[in-house]
Amino acid sequence: MKLLHAPTSPFVRKVMAVIRELGLADRVAIEFNPASPLQRDPALVEHNPLGKIPALILDDGITLFDSPVICEYLAATAGDAALFPPAGPARWAALTQQALGDGLLDAAIANRYETVMRPQELRWAGWTEAQLAKVRGALDRIEALAPSLPATPTIGTITLGCALGYLDFRYADLNWREGRPAAAAWFDAFDARPSMAETRPRERAA
Amino acid sequence: MKLLHAPTSPFVRKVMAVIRELGLADRVAIEFNPASPLQRDPALVEHNPLGKIPALILDDGITLFDSPVICEYLAATAGDAALFPPAGPARWAALTQQALGDGLLDAAIANRYETVMRPQELRWAGWTEAQLAKVRGALDRIEALAPSLPATPTIGTITLGCALGYLDFRYADLNWREGRPAAAAWFDAFDARPSMAETRPRERAA
Repeated sequence: MKLLHAPTSPFVRKVMAVIRELGLADRVAIEFNPASPLQRDPALVEHNPLGKIPALILDDGITLFDSPVICEYLAATAGDAALFPPAGPARWAALTQQALGDGLLDAAIANRYETVMRPQELRWAGWTEAQLAKVRGALDRIEALAPSLPATPTIGTITLGCALGYLDFRYADLNWREGRPAAAAWFDAFDARPSMAETRPRERAA
Repeated sequence: MKLLHAPTSPFVRKVMAVIRELGLADRVAIEFNPASPLQRDPALVEHNPLGKIPALILDDGITLFDSPVICEYLAATAGDAALFPPAGPARWAALTQQALGDGLLDAAIANRYETVMRPQELRWAGWTEAQLAKVRGALDRIEALAPSLPATPTIGTITLGCALGYLDFRYADLNWREGRPAAAAWFDAFDARPSMAETRPRERAA
């Protein structure tokens, strides 16, 4: 199978961390794709008509997306029942944590589009403020959750880790650790896992 | 349990259709919430710090979000294994169809924010075009999928139905049926299901 990939995407990073946690690295080929919210890449939209990565192309040609679907497929393929716990409170907690991290990222990325991609004279401070309010609200929830997050990784904690790592990558000025000691301590430990340390976001080499 | 709800939201509609398919209507209280992407509602963000609906507040006070998580929880609670098939090709197909429908909706709603909510002088035609390209790409994929969509509802087909219903509600001018006869025929039949007919989007009564 083949993963359409970019080293800057936090949603791709979720999949890459899951691949490492599951020991599947030698079964997934990685192919760079220059996904853009503005320009549709023919090699991508043929597989995912939404024009987004990650997309996982299976050997029979079927393409899976988005990141929650790909991650759950990989866990099932590896016979793992820890990253996606079976139906029950642990599963709903992990999936809601995933939605929290993905939602934080959606807001942070929406604001990147606003402040980096949109022509300067068309930017709207009210939109930026609304997105950052979502980010801060999600961060405060992570701070409240941190003391009770499970020690073993789940799709929930992996997503929260990728979300916080994205803020370090793109929003260093936000100082998200300030006033959030529990989240900061949790992240420092979690981010040292090989699956996280080996997948930190980076600009693509020229 | 209690569902935070608005009659215009296609993501809330997914949950409402699932509730009906599962026969859970008498177990879920419905409470209107004026969720807005710009103004944070304290009664909402206490439960979902992202400020989004649907959010499902369980009897023990735990809140589940977003719509995929809530729908899967409800199916598991009802002991249903049809809306979310067990791990295997039917599950990955249904979940990717859900991501396709949710992604169509994300693009359509992003463009609503652009064209309805954003101050007129700050609108960017390039953004609108990019979102509509995603919508059209997703529609073309639905057209290709339509002949092989399962006869029994899944979270995939319910989401696709809610996505197409949203276009009828907010994007009548798009004429999405034009050139997509298979999707149109599939939708006409699916939309007649009681779970869909009873949940069509509408403006809230004043």
